[in-house]
Amino acid sequence: MTPDELVRTFINHIEAKDLDAACALMSDDCEYDNVPMAKVFGIEAVKQILGPFTSGCSEINWVIVRQSATGDMTSGVVLNERIDRFKMGERWVELPLAGVFEIKSGKISLWRDYFDLATFQKAMAG
Amino acid sequence: MTPDELVRTFINHIEAKDLDAACALMSDDCEYDNVPMAKVFGIEAVKQILGPFTSGCSEINWVIVRQSATGDMTSGVVLNERIDRFKMGERWVELPLAGVFEIKSGKISLWRDYFDLATFQKAMAG
Repeated sequence: MTPDELVRTFINHIEAKDLDAACALMSDDCEYDNVPMAKVFGIEAVKQILGPFTSGCSEINWVIVRQSATGDMTSGVVLNERIDRFKMGERWVELPLAGVFEIKSGKISLWRDYFDLATFQKAMAG
Repeated sequence: MTPDELVRTFINHIEAKDLDAACALMSDDCEYDNVPMAKVFGIEAVKQILGPFTSGCSEINWVIVRQSATGDMTSGVVLNERIDRFKMGERWVELPLAGVFEIKSGKISLWRDYFDLATFQKAMAG
């Protein structure tokens, strides 16, 4: 598996709402940083944030618009541009964003998303 | 020159406040998209947006934290994570963001920055 494939697999697991499989690809002390909101550390914290999302929506579809990777599975970086889509009831909520992933020793050690918080709040409010 | 080098050179020109040199690296119909604000098209529009910034601050320092590129100068993509720093008077204004650049036929045809607008407004207000 390459860093590029690792991140695509990670996102596939989230789309399948399989948080355990997704988090198995993260390091124990991973940093998860939603830039305009907050950053947390560790798999339990990631699950606490993502759990309500995955259980609160009927479908998840994260479109990778562009993605580029450097390095390898020992030490790599993956950057992508995405449209994260969540189906809430009958409505699709969409958030355009850019993601940063750092790979260390085969696991995702950093996941950071850049987006506009007001855009997200407006999208959620519908 | 590679796509990676093209974007680094582009940013160096902006840091030097040389908008003519920077815009010479963009295609005539380039898209410049500040995601939470607005997108514009064409070099004149880029200059109208960046001009007041470069003339309104004493120093510009855009730190590329991470950057990754794919493709070539005919058709390439460069993604980066940056801290864009502007010195206004005696104060440095900093904005963390992620940038997307598309290269077509040797020029930047798309420049898109993802950031939180409220963070930028707070930083500007000081």
